Amino acid sequence: MYDALFRAQLDELKNGGNYRHFAELERHRGQFPAATHHGAQREVTIWCSNDYLGMGQHPAVLQAMHGALDTCGAGAGGTRNISGTTHEHVLLEAELADLHGKQAALLFTSGYVSNWASLGTLGARIPGLVILSDALNHASMIEGIRHSKAERIVWTHNDLADLERHLAALPLDRPKLIAFESVYSMDGDIAPIAEICDLAERYNAMTYLDEVHAVGLYGPRGGGIAEREGLMHRIDVIQGTLGKAYGVTGGYIAASATLCDFIRSFASGFIFTTALPPAVAAGARAAVAHLKGSQLERAAQRRAVASVREALDRIGVPHLPNPSHIIPVVVGCPQKCRYISDRLLAEHGIYIQPINHPTVPRGTERLRITPSPVHSAEDIRRLVLALEALWAECQLARRPLAAQ
Amino acid sequence: MYDALFRAQLDELKNGGNYRHFAELERHRGQFPAATHHGAQREVTIWCSNDYLGMGQHPAVLQAMHGALDTCGAGAGGTRNISGTTHEHVLLEAELADLHGKQAALLFTSGYVSNWASLGTLGARIPGLVILSDALNHASMIEGIRHSKAERIVWTHNDLADLERHLAALPLDRPKLIAFESVYSMDGDIAPIAEICDLAERYNAMTYLDEVHAVGLYGPRGGGIAEREGLMHRIDVIQGTLGKAYGVTGGYIAASATLCDFIRSFASGFIFTTALPPAVAAGARAAVAHLKGSQLERAAQRRAVASVREALDRIGVPHLPNPSHIIPVVVGCPQKCRYISDRLLAEHGIYIQPINHPTVPRGTERLRITPSPVHSAEDIRRLVLALEALWAECQLARRPLAAQ
Ligand SMILES: Cc1ncc(COP(=O)(O)O)c(C=O)c1O
Ligand SMILES: Cc1ncc(COP(=O)(O)O)c(C=O)c1O
Repeated sequence: MYDALFRAQLDELKNGGNYRHFAELERHRGQFPAATHHGAQREVTIWCSNDYLGMGQHPAVLQAMHGALDTCGAGAGGTRNISGTTHEHVLLEAELADLHGKQAALLFTSGYVSNWASLGTLGARIPGLVILSDALNHASMIEGIRHSKAERIVWTHNDLADLERHLAALPLDRPKLIAFESVYSMDGDIAPIAEICDLAERYNAMTYLDEVHAVGLYGPRGGGIAEREGLMHRIDVIQGTLGKAYGVTGGYIAASATLCDFIRSFASGFIFTTALPPAVAAGARAAVAHLKGSQLERAAQRRAVASVREALDRIGVPHLPNPSHIIPVVVGCPQKCRYISDRLLAEHGIYIQPINHPTVPRGTERLRITPSPVHSAEDIRRLVLALEALWAECQLARRPLAAQ
Repeated sequence: MYDALFRAQLDELKNGGNYRHFAELERHRGQFPAATHHGAQREVTIWCSNDYLGMGQHPAVLQAMHGALDTCGAGAGGTRNISGTTHEHVLLEAELADLHGKQAALLFTSGYVSNWASLGTLGARIPGLVILSDALNHASMIEGIRHSKAERIVWTHNDLADLERHLAALPLDRPKLIAFESVYSMDGDIAPIAEICDLAERYNAMTYLDEVHAVGLYGPRGGGIAEREGLMHRIDVIQGTLGKAYGVTGGYIAASATLCDFIRSFASGFIFTTALPPAVAAGARAAVAHLKGSQLERAAQRRAVASVREALDRIGVPHLPNPSHIIPVVVGCPQKCRYISDRLLAEHGIYIQPINHPTVPRGTERLRITPSPVHSAEDIRRLVLALEALWAECQLARRPLAAQ
């Protein structure tokens, strides 16, 4: 009986074109974005990785990881409280606190867990808290808020008027938390952080900012959009990941020492789980430290993003305009999106995963292209030629060339 | 206002003696259980690690991790669906499916997330499901069940009569899931798995077994208590961790192909997070493979556990009797427990974290000792001498020597 139920729900996904096939890849150190695709049995160029700056193969990161393996071994061997706090964890937390100009930082096993556990704990333990959540917040924030059982108000994405309307309707002395992201990963748009901070001050709300798609990438030291705009001190909790621009894995929050201690002391998802391996912490710290000093990777990424956009404009393939490094090419149909992705792979050796529901709303299925400093001019040329051929073949709408 | 609230709740913890201080350790590869304690500024012997077999420094594990770093780089660079499924993930899932004699396995970023996401998804997506949860289940299972919003019935720990009473009170055709652990980590007792499977069959329930403290340690291939007792085929979902006996990090479930596909396709905590680094997957696979073949580590651990127990009996220090590798020495008072732990560290260079509420119920605060194959006879002698001295000094109850 259980099996039939599972199958029925999976069939529904399949019929809707939303069943996910995982591409089995083998990256080659030093050659990324090149990889072996085991399903297709061929070499491919990855164009949809969140290793945005190629730090996953940076010599400083790898050396730090090899070094920590050699000196400390593999795992942490326990939860943070029971023998699992290593020197590497403490050093990384200090590095992250410094990155965001905060008193403290707290590591989690992933960005997902850091959002889920932090919002879950704040919502559950601040009596009467209302969480005002941007409508496009990531699943990990939504689940954390839901888990907390705090009252939740969803405000229209990036809409200050709607946010203010909700804030103004609440008693001024009622505890409030505004939860939002800086760079939204699927559309690549950016929140009006300063204005949200203004509202937070006016209405006595805390601010919680997910900078997962911005840390390492924006700001003179890679502190994210809030750093770039000089706003880090106005945000109560900055949350980030070590698994995207920093190229390794893990998540964190940076905040006041008291707030971090509070989450550290009460969050189930922080307390009851094995700490990250010291080698992971060491690798992430090397990446954070490197990107504090170096502008090279960020500058090269910006150039790659600009050339892909220009080339797409030249051939009239429409992409969402946005001020970030993410280039969404909306196809708008799950089957077509998968078809294009399959053809890119089979004929052109280009791997771009189709992004379907529930990651994006139905009808906005897309290819999400993430150019990085390690994509060459030749990689870009091949990508654009392939898209041009497929757009012609599939008779997909083009942007009139005059309108560019 | 928020800060004052955080402080008040932290003060409450401190006043109750339940505030946690993390020991900052630096393990030395090849020398574990020896480590540097940065707070105490001295060399210590770790006696409370969950790296139960010392696999965190096993050459095969470290070599696999170095190798994967060299060939694939640091992180996976994406979620499993979006460029983050590497060859190493696929190989590890096959290894785990084989370990438990199941059609498939599914990797998560941690054991915590595997419980939370799997139980959360089953509970949310099987209409009308009742989850019958052992009273001492781990926080990750409790949170997953809570998150699912399924009806939950808590049955008395390891009490078959109570479980049956609850099962019998439910309609036979109502979907049910019995969630429990094999080795309970804080008391070290073991569930009556066969009898629970009998009840599950009689009352038409699925079974979900957390073998986090058993995988690698029990059964001829390290498949856990269910393997040892020939029961793996009777369990629907076997859940485990790669961060304890396997010495690295990560978590998983093993189950039918359909069930794994179901969780893979619907679990937010699986879908929306960066995949584990290939090097972590490679290290974990090496550990699993090694412990499938080798009995050495398990045999040596059993000898170490037996000698610690015998030595404690000789000096009359009471420890909970149980059929597992975990030796709980209950002190029963958070302050005393911390005091003993502090003295062990400062005077004897022995690190055993005090285990306080909420990890264990108030009044059962304890030292939880985990002997491993890498503890020498001399380590054991020093541990027992130290405990003897402290028990005398603190005038803690001893077991009358005659009663041994
Ligand atoms: C906005 C956002 N927040 C959080 C996460 C989770 O971070 P991690 O991959 O480290 O779990 C992601 C993506 O995975 C994300 O897109
Ligand atoms: C019974 C049990 N299940 C699950 C977990 C979580 O596993 P992990 O440490 O891999 O997150 C733990 C301990 O951490 C545990 O004791």
